[in-house]
This record gives sequence, C-alpha cells and structure tokens, in this order.
Amino acid sequence: MTKGRMEAFSDGVIAIIITIMVLELKVPAGEDLHALAPTIPFFLSYVMSYIYIGIYWNNHHHMLHATTRINGRILWANLHLLFWLSLVPVATHWLGETGSAPVPTALYGCVLLCAAIAYTILQTAIVRHQGPEALLSTAVGRDVKGKLSMALYVTAIPLAFVNRWASDIIYIGVALTWLVPDRRIESRIDQRT
Amino acid sequence: MTKGRMEAFSDGVIAIIITIMVLELKVPAGEDLHALAPTIPFFLSYVMSYIYIGIYWNNHHHMLHATTRINGRILWANLHLLFWLSLVPVATHWLGETGSAPVPTALYGCVLLCAAIAYTILQTAIVRHQGPEALLSTAVGRDVKGKLSMALYVTAIPLAFVNRWASDIIYIGVALTWLVPDRRIESRIDQRT
Amino acid sequence: MTKGRMEAFSDGVIAIIITIMVLELKVPAGEDLHALAPTIPFFLSYVMSYIYIGIYWNNHHHMLHATTRINGRILWANLHLLFWLSLVPVATHWLGETGSAPVPTALYGCVLLCAAIAYTILQTAIVRHQGPEALLSTAVGRDVKGKLSMALYVTAIPLAFVNRWASDIIYIGVALTWLVPDRRIESRIDQRT
Amino acid sequence: MTKGRMEAFSDGVIAIIITIMVLELKVPAGEDLHALAPTIPFFLSYVMSYIYIGIYWNNHHHMLHATTRINGRILWANLHLLFWLSLVPVATHWLGETGSAPVPTALYGCVLLCAAIAYTILQTAIVRHQGPEALLSTAVGRDVKGKLSMALYVTAIPLAFVNRWASDIIYIGVALTWLVPDRRIESRIDQRT
Repeated sequence: MTKGRMEAFSDGVIAIIITIMVLELKVPAGEDLHALAPTIPFFLSYVMSYIYIGIYWNNHHHMLHATTRINGRILWANLHLLFWLSLVPVATHWLGETGSAPVPTALYGCVLLCAAIAYTILQTAIVRHQGPEALLSTAVGRDVKGKLSMALYVTAIPLAFVNRWASDIIYIGVALTWLVPDRRIESRIDQRT
Repeated sequence: MTKGRMEAFSDGVIAIIITIMVLELKVPAGEDLHALAPTIPFFLSYVMSYIYIGIYWNNHHHMLHATTRINGRILWANLHLLFWLSLVPVATHWLGETGSAPVPTALYGCVLLCAAIAYTILQTAIVRHQGPEALLSTAVGRDVKGKLSMALYVTAIPLAFVNRWASDIIYIGVALTWLVPDRRIESRIDQRT
Repeated sequence: MTKGRMEAFSDGVIAIIITIMVLELKVPAGEDLHALAPTIPFFLSYVMSYIYIGIYWNNHHHMLHATTRINGRILWANLHLLFWLSLVPVATHWLGETGSAPVPTALYGCVLLCAAIAYTILQTAIVRHQGPEALLSTAVGRDVKGKLSMALYVTAIPLAFVNRWASDIIYIGVALTWLVPDRRIESRIDQRT
Repeated sequence: MTKGRMEAFSDGVIAIIITIMVLELKVPAGEDLHALAPTIPFFLSYVMSYIYIGIYWNNHHHMLHATTRINGRILWANLHLLFWLSLVPVATHWLGETGSAPVPTALYGCVLLCAAIAYTILQTAIVRHQGPEALLSTAVGRDVKGKLSMALYVTAIPLAFVNRWASDIIYIGVALTWLVPDRRIESRIDQRT
C-alpha cells in the first residue's frame, strides 16, 4: 500500500485546520485603530496555534518521508492524530476569547497533550511496520524530545489554575524547541545517501 | 483514464467534510468548567461522525487501491457518494443540538443509509468496469457486511421514534464493526504479490 | 510546464466550493418534521448547484486529461473560471433563501453564464496551446453544446422577471444535458489507444 | 527531500484562502436589485484579493517549478508566507465593510507588504539552497520588480491616512504589473530545454 493518499489527505486536513483558524479572527467592529485592540489576544493565540500546526505538519512530513510502507493500523493512527489537531482551532478560539482564563488555558494544554500522544502512537505504529533496522527507527531513537514535551504539557495543565501565564510560557517554550524540524531524520537521510 | 484526480478530489472533499464538522463545535459561552457542559452532546456527535467519515475515507482508499481503470460513470457514482457524505456535518449538528431528538436521530440514519447505498453503487460500478476476475470483485464477494449495515440503518430509522438511544447504539455498533479496514482487500493484495 | 499543480489546485478549490455550499444548509430551528420544511428550498438549490459544480469538475477533468502542455495564459484562464465557480455558493444561497425570487434567479443565471464563458475561454486557450491537430481540438470541434448552453442562460436571465420557474427549468434542463461527461473526448481517446 | 508535499500543502492552503473569502460575501438582505448595492464594496475587495492570491499562487508555482531541492528552512519560509496570505481574507473583509476607511486600507497594505517580504525570504532561501548557478538564481536576478512592489506598499500605507483612494489605486496598480506570470523563469526554462 502506498503512502501517497495518506499524505494527500493529511495535507488537506492540516491545510484546512490551519486556515479555518483565521475564520475565528473576527473583523474589528469599527474602522479606527482602537477597534483593532480587542483582536490582539485572538491574533496572538492564532499565531501560537499556527506555529503548532506548522510544527506538526513539518514533522509529519519528515516522518512520512522516512516511511516506506503503511497499513490499516497506520491509517487509523493518522486519523486519530488529525482528530486532536482538528480541535486546536476551537481550543485556540476559547483561549483568545477569554484572554487565557484558567480553564481554557488548561484545555488548550489537554488538546496539545492528546495530539502529542497521538503523534507518538502514529510514530510507534510506523516504526513497528518498517522494522527495527529502518531509517525512522534509528532516527527517532528513544525520542527524548517528544517525551519531554509531553511532560511539560502535563505540568502546564494544572499550573493553569495557579498561574495561567506560566502555562502559556510553557506552551510557547515547547513550540520554540520544535521550530527546528526533526534534524535527526534529515541528518540520517544525508548519511545514507 | 487515470484514477489520480478522482482520488485527489475525493480526498479534498472528505478532508473538508471532516474538518468543517469542527466548525459546528461552538466555543463555550463562559470561561469555567460549567461552560463546557453544553458542548458535550456536540462533541459526542462530532466524534461519532468523525469516525464514520474516517471509515468511508479508509474503505474508499482501499477500494480505489484495488481499482485500475475508471470511466465517466464511476466519476459520477463517486460524486454521488460525496454528496451524501457532505450532508453528515449538518445532520450531526442537528443531532447534537437537539440531544438526539427522534426526528434528527432518524434523519441521521437516513443520511448514513443513503451514503451506504451510494458506496454500494460506486463499488458495483467499479467492479463492473474492472471485470469479474479483477482483484476487487473477488475481494468484495457478496458483500455481506455492507448489506447487514444497510439493514441495521433501515431498522434504526423507525426505531428512533420508539427509543432513540437504541438507534444511537445501532449507529455506534455499525461504526465499530467497520473500524477495522476492509481486510478482504488487504489480504487479497498480499496473496497476489 | 506540467499540468499537475494546476489540476491539484483546481481540485482543491472545486472541492471547497462544493463543500462550503453545505455550510449554507442551516440546521433546522426545532426538532420535529415541521422544522425541516423551511430547509427544503435550500436543499433543492444545493442539489442543483452541487450537480453544476460536479459537471464542471467532470468536464475539467476530461479536458485536462486531453491536455499535454500548459502556460501562464492557461493558468490565469483557469483562475478566471474558478472565480466564477466560487460565486456559485452565495448565488445558490440567495436563490434558496428567497425561494427563487426574480432577481436572485436572474443573478444565478448570470453566474452560470459567466462560468460557461470562462470555461470556453479556458478551452480555447488550451486548444490554441496544443495545436490544431491535438486530441482536444478535434474532440471539442465547433462546441455546439457549449454554445447552446450559453444561449439558454442568456434566455433564462430576462425570463426570470416574467416567469422565474421557467428559468429554473432551463437551468435544470441544461444541467441534465451535461450530466453525461464529455463523450467526445472519451471516445477520441479510445480511438487513438 | 522532495518538493511534492510542500507544493500540495501550499496548494491546499491557498485554495482554502481564496475560497473562504467568498464566505465573507454576505447574501443580500432582500430579494430585489437594491439589496445588491451594499454588497458591491465587498465584491470589489474580493475581486482585488482574489487577483492578489492568484498572483501569489502563480508565482509560487513558477518558482517551485524551477526548484529542485528543498530543506527544513524552506519549509518554514513557505509556512511563513502562507501565514501572511492567510490574513488576506480578514483584511479584505475589513476593507470591504468599512468602504476602504483609512486604518483598514493601511492594514491591507501592511498584510500585502508582509506577504511580499515573506515571498522574498522564501525566494532567497530557495536560491541559496539551489546554488548560484541554478535556473532560479539567474532568472530572479536582482528582483527589481519585487523590490519596487514593496516600495510602493510602503508608500501606500501612510498615504491611506491622507488619501485612501490613492492607496487603493497603488494596490490595484501593483497587482496589474504582476498579472503577467514571471516571464523571467518561463523564458529561462525555454532557453535551457
């Protein structure tokens, strides 16, 4: 079975997710600069979510680049990941609308955590299907970065009820560490070719 | 005629259908946990419909994987299937908004039934075009699973006026039996290669 | 220059156009059968527009199938066609919301006419770029069917102010004549291979 | 790394951006010709933005056509460009709703300027990755046209507070100069083959 259609479908869903978030950006109610002010928290939450979705697309791209074969289990693991990513826009909107209130901040972290878990499940399903000697298996290794990110989300969720800005800083911090695409896969590909 | 563009177009439409359902998920009106409660029926109906659309995409993927040639009739049978799938989001929303009232529950079943019939028509058109000896024809066989699903939808539609939860359980049950991708096709492909 | 990306982009835009029309289908305000009644004109106008967009996608598919080379002029002619198709959802909604009042009925015809003109421009640009001996040129010929459709739209637009149902019947009639994909191209391909 | 998925993802996002702008076109509130009048500024701003997005897609198409290799940096430069393009619909809507008031007119120019800068960054990243002897590098040259466009946007933004129509004319003028696809790349490709 070829990975082409799974890539195409994922591209479609992620492209829509990243774009419908802009629909949440309401047109300012007025025509001067003051009318722009209430849209700023929306805009900031949009930027953060855009970067997160961009990271997922980028890493998904790299991971599937190192994938040769897929099966039904991988298709469903992929749909499971897309499910959690599809909740990012509504979580983003709630975060922006409430100016990062505790519950929306915690919920945003839950969605990020579930997406990270789903990504790990997908990665494991792919690694298992390619065999332990495959490019992806050696590139991913023990996946310290992925596990650390999940630990940080788990920390940020309860922290939102103590200090919500601390949670937001954690979300931003994790995003920044992932902005660099997964060099492990890229460098392994270079070594082999 | 190649199947590439038909796959690409179907991927696009299904990706949009699965994603616009999230637009139905309203942002909670408030910023605490109580504000989340009214969104739960929406969320549950979203999950069920996401799984249904996922099943259709998965089986569509498998079916076209076993398809070699297409014609104008197949293109229209495919558009006919996409038409009924495109009604799933609005049926889902009505189901969620009314907390599964009898009429919306029955209507949801009608949409599922029509989509199942459209899928069967598409499958028949493809099988006919590939010839009786082709991979897909032998893999599909008498299609007991497909016929059983349609019979269950036909049962669930009037049942919604007697006991709507029974109908919902039937919808969930049918979905669960399809969560496994169509092994018949996958195993036949393995046998041949 | 390859036609691959132009096909992919057109597929994306047409897939979105055909799907966002469903967003116009409002969820019924109520939970019984009577609540469904006001949605019927919307539904009917959705069905008609779905078929029109499906026809365009189908014929676009056939036309590009017979195309070997593209250039900048063809890319813009294609964008021009997509522009008019993108207005179909809003024209459809207005038609459905007013129960086919004269002005919306005439406007719907204008959008169909402009789309048909844009399709002809695209077809001419492609034919010119392939050369007079190419498959598409001989298949399209004098394009009687296309010219007749445009003449019917031109008739239906003023007719909407006299008898709007007559205009609707013309729109439906033209659609029915196009439901069959362009056999001219299909049969020519068969002859050559 | 292949450019295929980056093209497919960009096609998806741009297709959605160009299409969701139509969602901003409100259905007229009434059923006669007078009801159409308030939609005219929306329609005009939609046409202008459609042409801008079309220009970006066209040039993106040409640029990637002349690209052979991509890397992680290019993927992010591309996402950065798509980010600014994704703000075009909301900027367009504000422009149309206020009938081109000074602040929305200036903001529209800011979005165009940021998109132009992002395009230049992407172009530079691609040129650097292909090497100075590559097709794209020689075709782009000193990119006078790109720099001139940015200078015009920089002029139009403050000008919106003096004479907003002058700014609009600049936006339209720049668009017209770009309507022709980048002949530099097309003619270089022709020379080489």
